[in-house]
Amino acid sequence: MSQTDDPILKRYKLTIAYDGTAFHGWQKQEPPGQEPLRTVQGVVQMATAMVMKQRVIVVGASRTDAGVHARGQVAHFDAATRIPLERIAPAINSRLPRDVEVMGTEEVDASFDAISGAKHKRYRYRIFNSLHRPLHQRFCVWHCWLNLDVEKMNVAAKKLIGTHDVAGLANADHGRDNTVRTIFDCFVEQRNQCDGEGPQVHIVVEGSGFLYNMVRIIAGTLVEVGRGHFAPEIIDKILATADRRHAGPTLAPQGLSLEWIRY
Amino acid sequence: MSQTDDPILKRYKLTIAYDGTAFHGWQKQEPPGQEPLRTVQGVVQMATAMVMKQRVIVVGASRTDAGVHARGQVAHFDAATRIPLERIAPAINSRLPRDVEVMGTEEVDASFDAISGAKHKRYRYRIFNSLHRPLHQRFCVWHCWLNLDVEKMNVAAKKLIGTHDVAGLANADHGRDNTVRTIFDCFVEQRNQCDGEGPQVHIVVEGSGFLYNMVRIIAGTLVEVGRGHFAPEIIDKILATADRRHAGPTLAPQGLSLEWIRY
Repeated sequence: MSQTDDPILKRYKLTIAYDGTAFHGWQKQEPPGQEPLRTVQGVVQMATAMVMKQRVIVVGASRTDAGVHARGQVAHFDAATRIPLERIAPAINSRLPRDVEVMGTEEVDASFDAISGAKHKRYRYRIFNSLHRPLHQRFCVWHCWLNLDVEKMNVAAKKLIGTHDVAGLANADHGRDNTVRTIFDCFVEQRNQCDGEGPQVHIVVEGSGFLYNMVRIIAGTLVEVGRGHFAPEIIDKILATADRRHAGPTLAPQGLSLEWIRY
Repeated sequence: MSQTDDPILKRYKLTIAYDGTAFHGWQKQEPPGQEPLRTVQGVVQMATAMVMKQRVIVVGASRTDAGVHARGQVAHFDAATRIPLERIAPAINSRLPRDVEVMGTEEVDASFDAISGAKHKRYRYRIFNSLHRPLHQRFCVWHCWLNLDVEKMNVAAKKLIGTHDVAGLANADHGRDNTVRTIFDCFVEQRNQCDGEGPQVHIVVEGSGFLYNMVRIIAGTLVEVGRGHFAPEIIDKILATADRRHAGPTLAPQGLSLEWIRY
C-alpha cells in the first residue's frame, strides 16, 4: 500500500519543436553492438527521465525521418512527480541540447494517446525558389532554381482534398493495410522572406494521417506540376490508379516540417 | 611581346555572401606545419584560380571574424581572361561550397581597391529576443531572453551618429593609430519573423570604417541599455573618455552580418 502523500502516476502531453538536421529522426535507434544513434526521442526521453528521476517512455505522434523538422510534434509520457506542471518544460529544456525545445506541457487523461488520438496534422514543405542558393536556410529548405507556377500547383493541390486511397502518394514500403486517408486541406503559397534571403514557395498539407514519405511525394508531384512537367490532372490519375509510378519524386527531408497536431 | 589577341590583365570586383558558421573567418590562414584553415578567402581564391586558370589573389574589404556572416562582402582580384563577364560568377559558384556564393561581378578600373576604397559599410546584428530558443536560426542570431527596451536602445544608438574617437568601442588590440571614425547611422528595430520563429531585435550600424570588434561592442553596449543596466547616456561617457571599460561586452560573432559596402 502506498503512503497517501506519494505522488500518483499521471499522463503528460508534450509539444516539441526541433531542428532535425543533426538527428537520425524522431524514433529511438539502438543498433546492437553500436552506440545509440542521436534521435529526438532519445534526447527528450533522457532529459525527461532525469527531471522525473524515474524511467519514462516518451511516445511521439509522428515518426519524422532524419533531417525533417517539427514545430509542433506531440508526445506523451507517464510519471509520478510532485514537480508543478509549469516547471516541467523549463526543467526538461535545461537538460536538452539547443536543437530541440519543449514548447509546452499539459496534464492529460490517462486515455490520451499521442499516436492513436491524433485527428488532424499539418505539414509544411519549404522550397527556396531562386537562382541564388540558400545560405543560412540551407538545412530547412529544399532548393529549386526552376521557376514554379504557384497557380497551377494550387489547381493540383485542390484536387488532393477529400477522402481517397492515397497509396499512389506513398513509398512502397508504407506497411499499412488501410491506405485510405482524408486530406482536409492542401495549398501552395508564395512567401517573401522578410529577412531577404530569397523567395520561397510553401506547400501546406493537412490530413487525418499520412503514409510513409507521403508529404514529400505530394511536394515532389506538385513541383513537377509547377515546373510544367505534369499537368494538374496528374493528381486525378494518381488517386484513381493508386499507382506510385505516376507521382513525382520524393523530395529531400530538410524542406519538411511538422507544424501541429490536433486531438 | 605578347600576341595581340592575348587577354589583358583586368581588375574584377566580386560581391560575396556567406554563412560564416563553418569558416575560420574571411582571411586566409595557413599555420606552419598544419593544414590550412577553412576560410572564405581561401575557398573563393581557390575557386577563382580554377576558373581563371591562373594564380589570383582575392583581396577582401572586411576581415570578418570566425562565425560572422556577410550578405555583401566586397573583394577584388586581377586576371587576364577571355571568359565573358556574365559567366564569371556562375563559373566560380559552381566550384564553391554551398555556404558561400558570389552574388555579382563587375569589371573595375585598375585603381579600384576593395579595402582602401570602401567609403560606407553597413552591418546588422541580430538578436533573438524570446524566452524560447532559436532553433533553425541558432547560427545566425544571438539569443537574449531578457526583454529589451528598443526605444531606449534607439536613444543610445542616435548618440553614436557622428565623427568621434571610437577607441572606447573597440577591442584593445585594434592596432590602429587613428581611432577617429564616422558613424553615418545607427538604429535598432523590432523584427517579427515572418516564418514565426520568434521576435528579433536588430541593431544596424553604418560607418566609414570599424575598428576590431567594434560592431559587436556597440551591440553589447546597446543591449545593456535595452535591459536597463546602463542609461543611454553611457554613450556620451564612452565617446568622451574613449575608455573601453565603460562599454558593454563584445557580443557573440554569430549575430553579426556585413550587409553592404559602398565605394
